[in-house]
Amino acid sequence: MKTIKIGLLGMGNIGTGTYKTLEMNRAEVESTLGTKVEIVKILEKDVTRDRGIEVPMEKFTQDPDVIFNDPEIDIVIELLGGIEPASSFMLKAMENGKHVVTANKAAVAANYHKLMETAKANNIIFKFEASVGGGIPILGTLTGPLRANKFEEVMGILNGTTNYILHMMTKEGWSYDEALKDAQALGFAEADPTADVEGIDAANKLSILMALMFDHYVHPTEIPTTGITEITKEKIEEARSNKCKIKLIAHAKKEEDGSIFYEVRPMYISETHPLANINKEFNAVFVKGNAVDDLMFYGKGAGPLPTGSAVMGDVIEISKLILR
Amino acid sequence: MKTIKIGLLGMGNIGTGTYKTLEMNRAEVESTLGTKVEIVKILEKDVTRDRGIEVPMEKFTQDPDVIFNDPEIDIVIELLGGIEPASSFMLKAMENGKHVVTANKAAVAANYHKLMETAKANNIIFKFEASVGGGIPILGTLTGPLRANKFEEVMGILNGTTNYILHMMTKEGWSYDEALKDAQALGFAEADPTADVEGIDAANKLSILMALMFDHYVHPTEIPTTGITEITKEKIEEARSNKCKIKLIAHAKKEEDGSIFYEVRPMYISETHPLANINKEFNAVFVKGNAVDDLMFYGKGAGPLPTGSAVMGDVIEISKLILR
Repeated sequence: MKTIKIGLLGMGNIGTGTYKTLEMNRAEVESTLGTKVEIVKILEKDVTRDRGIEVPMEKFTQDPDVIFNDPEIDIVIELLGGIEPASSFMLKAMENGKHVVTANKAAVAANYHKLMETAKANNIIFKFEASVGGGIPILGTLTGPLRANKFEEVMGILNGTTNYILHMMTKEGWSYDEALKDAQALGFAEADPTADVEGIDAANKLSILMALMFDHYVHPTEIPTTGITEITKEKIEEARSNKCKIKLIAHAKKEEDGSIFYEVRPMYISETHPLANINKEFNAVFVKGNAVDDLMFYGKGAGPLPTGSAVMGDVIEISKLILR
Repeated sequence: MKTIKIGLLGMGNIGTGTYKTLEMNRAEVESTLGTKVEIVKILEKDVTRDRGIEVPMEKFTQDPDVIFNDPEIDIVIELLGGIEPASSFMLKAMENGKHVVTANKAAVAANYHKLMETAKANNIIFKFEASVGGGIPILGTLTGPLRANKFEEVMGILNGTTNYILHMMTKEGWSYDEALKDAQALGFAEADPTADVEGIDAANKLSILMALMFDHYVHPTEIPTTGITEITKEKIEEARSNKCKIKLIAHAKKEEDGSIFYEVRPMYISETHPLANINKEFNAVFVKGNAVDDLMFYGKGAGPLPTGSAVMGDVIEISKLILR
């Protein structure tokens, strides 16, 4: 019986969450596939960190070519983050005939065409469910069960850090700085929060959604983007007096002339809209299709295990096709 | 180039919505598959009804065997509703080597094992996404992108009729009878609303969810079920004074000893819970997995086009596998 063998690039928080997801749910994964699944090699410098799980030392390598050149490895999971060297590593893996799974929105959004074309040219499967909405299975749904729709619009709360900050400003009456400090203390915001609070992370995710929903790729730096750093207590109060909440919304819409409107910016959302009640660090994606009408998906947009759930979901889908 | 040929059983509202979904979005469906898709035969007595679309008269038949015995038909879509003859027709189609798609929760829940076993024995694909949550792609998500989870709990608002009635009682202060009459006038409730208001429809859907999430099939009549006919204005007010709303919830939970608890009944839901804000005829499914944590899916649980979206999504998934 064939074993599905995986090479993992990066074992930080998300890599650890992915490894744990497989360990916790090995019975579900392997009974679904009727075969064993094993992470056989891990590219990671920090081999001594306490990850709360036992990882056999011999799995670690510091040479990516050990993974790319191993003829037994079927799937490479890229969880390094950042555009480079992650993008080059994914391309190298594809050229070596490995199927690729990633959670890396920055790399996918920056190099969308190159990655898709290289995957096609090498006849491999490239999946990136975890790159948008973390654990929320939005990409597989748009490209699978909802494929019999023309998509008209997407509105997403795609960044948990900024949603947490805006939620606490609204709920507790805090200033932006107070809410940011709280988010940092809880680990929801990084020491340098620029990519989150300036809307860059949300723009990366909107770029990926637009490419899949509208077959219309826009580089994330070309998406008009406004973050939340100018949101004051007074603006939150003004929204409240209009029965609205301020949310950082990634928005794309197909206009009647066929063109696509897109932007990332803080928006007033009516208290009665489903997106208004997405609280704390949760994410949500609201989509409209011409047959299915309004749909919303809600869940944890980040975190090691929710992201691990999405990464392993991609591994299962690829494995099913390998094993057919 | 192969054309995917479909036989359709039943062209009432849902059958018409499915036909329209394919007509509206033929370009999306066929470019996804790289092949043509055609509904070639339709089992339906009422050939003259104005459906708002043109259906060539020669497609209609009143003899189901014309469909079962046509060697060119790849997929049979069953949209007759009710347990029989729908179940027998699906089994017959499977035995004749046809892949089967249905939206029929009553038939799937009543004959789950027989249908699954017959599909397996005949090596055909059986899909029923539209049977739970209408347009909400919940079943494909649970069995696909979320497969790397152990599921712990599901709570669903799975019946639009009862949710509309409870919503209007809460919002307008109406009695049960007033709200039911309004729902009937708008077409959200049938003249005989028993299956909806007594919770039978929700129990059918919970039976299907439990089979897929927990690999634990329970016949719908074995699920403890309480409908909404005893809900009074006073009970709605009592819930409100406890900062809750009353919702008809289909609930199943894996207990620590591994057993499954399940029931359908009206429940107090805290106003801050995501399910509390599912208004009017919308449906929502809240699931908890051990990796992904809390997820919620929200959308139109009924209606010709949302249901057509789900049916055609199943047709696309099956066609992809036929064409590989």
